[in-house]
Amino acid sequence: MYRLTIQYSVPTDPETFDSYYLDKHLPLVTPMEGLRKLTVTRPRPLGGEKTVHLVCELDFDDAEAMKAGLASPEMQAAAADGVNLATPAILFAGEVEVIDLP
Amino acid sequence: MYRLTIQYSVPTDPETFDSYYLDKHLPLVTPMEGLRKLTVTRPRPLGGEKTVHLVCELDFDDAEAMKAGLASPEMQAAAADGVNLATPAILFAGEVEVIDLP
Repeated sequence: MYRLTIQYSVPTDPETFDSYYLDKHLPLVTPMEGLRKLTVTRPRPLGGEKTVHLVCELDFDDAEAMKAGLASPEMQAAAADGVNLATPAILFAGEVEVIDLP
Repeated sequence: MYRLTIQYSVPTDPETFDSYYLDKHLPLVTPMEGLRKLTVTRPRPLGGEKTVHLVCELDFDDAEAMKAGLASPEMQAAAADGVNLATPAILFAGEVEVIDLP
C-alpha cells in the first residue's frame, strides 16, 4: 500500500478550518479514481508543543496509482482549493510496510 | 481506531538508524498487549525539504488501550532505548476517522 500524508499546521481559526475542510475540501478529493481509503486524524501531542492540527492520509494500491491520483482533475481541484485552508501543510508519500506482530 | 504516530527526523546516519530500528528497537514494542497493527513508512517529501525520515504508526482499539500500551513494560523499554536512535522524534496520537468514499 502506498500512502500520501498531508499534515496541516495549527490554523488561526481551527473551527473554521475543520468545517471548511470536511464540508468543502475533502469532497473534492474523495471521488478520485484509485483512492482506496481516506482517513483524518486530529492528533494531540504527547510531550512537546502542538504543531500539527490535522493529518489526512490517502491510501493507494501502489506508487503508480498515487501518481495517477496526483495528476487527476480531483487532486488538481483540491490543490487549487488549498489556499482556502489558510494554513501551511507538508506532504509526503511512501510505501507502508506492515510489521509482523508476534 | 486510535493511532499513536512517531515521526523521526532525518538521522545523521540513516542506514545505521534503519538497521537498529528494525532489528533492535521495534522488537521491544511488538509484543505489547493491545497493539493491533504496526506500520513503518519511509516518506519522501512532495515539494519542500525532507525533514521526516521514518513514520511509525501503532494502532489500538481505542484511547484506553493506547494508554495501557504507553504504560506497558514494552513501551517503557522502547522509550528508554529511544536515546540509541540518536535523532529527534515527535509523537502524537488521536482517533482515526475513516472518511466515506463515494
